[in-house]
Amino acid sequence: MDKEYMKLALELAERGKGRVNPNPLVGAIIVKDNKIIGEGYHKCYGKAHAEVNAFENAIENVEGATMYVTLEPCSHYGKTPPCVERIIKEKISKVVIGSLDPNPLVAGRGVKRLREHGIDVEIGVLEEECKKVNEVFMKYIVSKMPFVVMKWAMSLDGKIATVSGDSKWISGEKSRENVHNLRNELSAIMVGVETVIKDNPMLTCRIENGRNPIRIIVDSKLRIPMDSNIVNSSSNIRTIVATTEEACKAKEEALKSKDIVIIHTQSHEERVDLEELMKILGELGIDSILLEGGGTLNFSALKQGIVDKIQVYIAPKIIGGEKARTPVSGNGFELIRECVKVENLIYKKIDEDVYLEGYIGGRK
Amino acid sequence: MDKEYMKLALELAERGKGRVNPNPLVGAIIVKDNKIIGEGYHKCYGKAHAEVNAFENAIENVEGATMYVTLEPCSHYGKTPPCVERIIKEKISKVVIGSLDPNPLVAGRGVKRLREHGIDVEIGVLEEECKKVNEVFMKYIVSKMPFVVMKWAMSLDGKIATVSGDSKWISGEKSRENVHNLRNELSAIMVGVETVIKDNPMLTCRIENGRNPIRIIVDSKLRIPMDSNIVNSSSNIRTIVATTEEACKAKEEALKSKDIVIIHTQSHEERVDLEELMKILGELGIDSILLEGGGTLNFSALKQGIVDKIQVYIAPKIIGGEKARTPVSGNGFELIRECVKVENLIYKKIDEDVYLEGYIGGRK
Repeated sequence: MDKEYMKLALELAERGKGRVNPNPLVGAIIVKDNKIIGEGYHKCYGKAHAEVNAFENAIENVEGATMYVTLEPCSHYGKTPPCVERIIKEKISKVVIGSLDPNPLVAGRGVKRLREHGIDVEIGVLEEECKKVNEVFMKYIVSKMPFVVMKWAMSLDGKIATVSGDSKWISGEKSRENVHNLRNELSAIMVGVETVIKDNPMLTCRIENGRNPIRIIVDSKLRIPMDSNIVNSSSNIRTIVATTEEACKAKEEALKSKDIVIIHTQSHEERVDLEELMKILGELGIDSILLEGGGTLNFSALKQGIVDKIQVYIAPKIIGGEKARTPVSGNGFELIRECVKVENLIYKKIDEDVYLEGYIGGRK
Repeated sequence: MDKEYMKLALELAERGKGRVNPNPLVGAIIVKDNKIIGEGYHKCYGKAHAEVNAFENAIENVEGATMYVTLEPCSHYGKTPPCVERIIKEKISKVVIGSLDPNPLVAGRGVKRLREHGIDVEIGVLEEECKKVNEVFMKYIVSKMPFVVMKWAMSLDGKIATVSGDSKWISGEKSRENVHNLRNELSAIMVGVETVIKDNPMLTCRIENGRNPIRIIVDSKLRIPMDSNIVNSSSNIRTIVATTEEACKAKEEALKSKDIVIIHTQSHEERVDLEELMKILGELGIDSILLEGGGTLNFSALKQGIVDKIQVYIAPKIIGGEKARTPVSGNGFELIRECVKVENLIYKKIDEDVYLEGYIGGRK
């Protein structure tokens, strides 16, 4: 039954997606005499943690009950008091934990404190699943750099647009809906200025009750058109343009007057230094980025080693064209053995499309 | 039980792969009192049919038995006498057929003749599977054009080689083994001269007891290097070079002296007319072609509508490069809605790679 309860706690945790960043997604369930008597999840950044919500929602006295929680309860004072103290106070007799908290402020201390108070603690039930639901948090809390998901939709022959630039739509409706869900979940979305010039996108989240991610445009030479959809909507949607010291100051001022935040990095091969940019964005509290290319930026991102995860939608279409755009371009890697390996590849069908997902391995 | 017996017959049929072209793959099983008393398959072009082999191998008197056969028994005199006459003679009481024979010389006549002799006939057990095992035959017998399988191996970002031309190896060992199996099964393999110039391949079947497919090089301007591996091995392995009327006659003679067969077609957009080429190859008895590109030829083949099936191996690697080769290049289709649709997409994992397979739809 432990796994069943943890699975429910995981489902609760996921409800916080896109609302708790850069906090972790956490779900908690209180069980007494094989009956669920309380459940809660972390709903919103700065608000009550999952454990506390579970206590508040409890329909019976929780003394002597078991708590299932997807992540190790916190032991430090943050925006809210430590959860372990509440657990001790409520006289829970056993705590089952999905995964430990890598946060250096917690990192086993929560477990230690519970055990010191005679509470039985079990660790590692559905550990992989619990870690995966918090893959963003797990990276960010330790490195202070955002977790980067590189996503593209391509034809079966690896094209992201036709030679004439047509890209509407390569993937199916359901695939595109998935992407909008992701835009709703991750803190920011990032594209290169080429994409803004060619496709003039909005980069918003088009689902009901969705929230827009912060938009980040990588634009070494500040070529972004002042009449682009991005600039025109920047008073309403948080927008960052990342550039280098060499950018034209007048253009910078013009963009700032449109409420766009300008970030400068050193030049890296005459472009924005993406590693430095990730550090700056991390400091701004951005824990996760959906990187939607295009090819030039994607290649730079892979080469600089800032990408964590890859998501590819493959549509059953053949576009062809020597000059048609591909998802990763730039200079490319010279040899097969030098190229980026993708690990733990999983795949599934989404309507007519095939979806592939994996993590960047070795090379970094 | 009908399906079980037909499944066995199908497995028998598949053993003839690569040996019976352009005949169909056929398997037959004779069952009496729920016991298999005979089995056979069509082993080799021009030799005995599956039904006859099953009779020859029977371990008991077959009178009154049921025969399971993947394809409608033939009713015409070809290289061997008609199987229906043998079935009648052997006093089989029931024949269960997987799929009807589209061959205009058979096409229901086999069934008719059996029924005229009071034999019970059932049609359509595992019909889809029986048709699929003979997809090559089903096209060829009706159109007299070869069944063309376009195959490529690419990286996750749609590249078939790095910018420097390195392509060894993109896909894994198991995927490459699959391709060699296919080279052993299909009658011919076809590439463009660009591939010969860039990769200098042998295009042989490198599996034990494998047989080499006929090699077809599409080479409008006869640019094939006289010192290429293809030309150097053409005395031992049947090789065809397809070109246009404008080809240099001296080069033609040089190639002919190396036992290479030259085929001329009209010019189609200054290239070999692939549709005409398919008709000529069909007349030569070539029922199936593995088309291994590269990109220019692949695009022409799709545009001219000669491709039936697509096989794609996707390796979990990212190669990048604006100038890296992609599986389908050429001019490309201008608009998404004009591009080639792939239908009935299936997918599976082959070790680390993902394999996709589908059939060319609508556009032709």
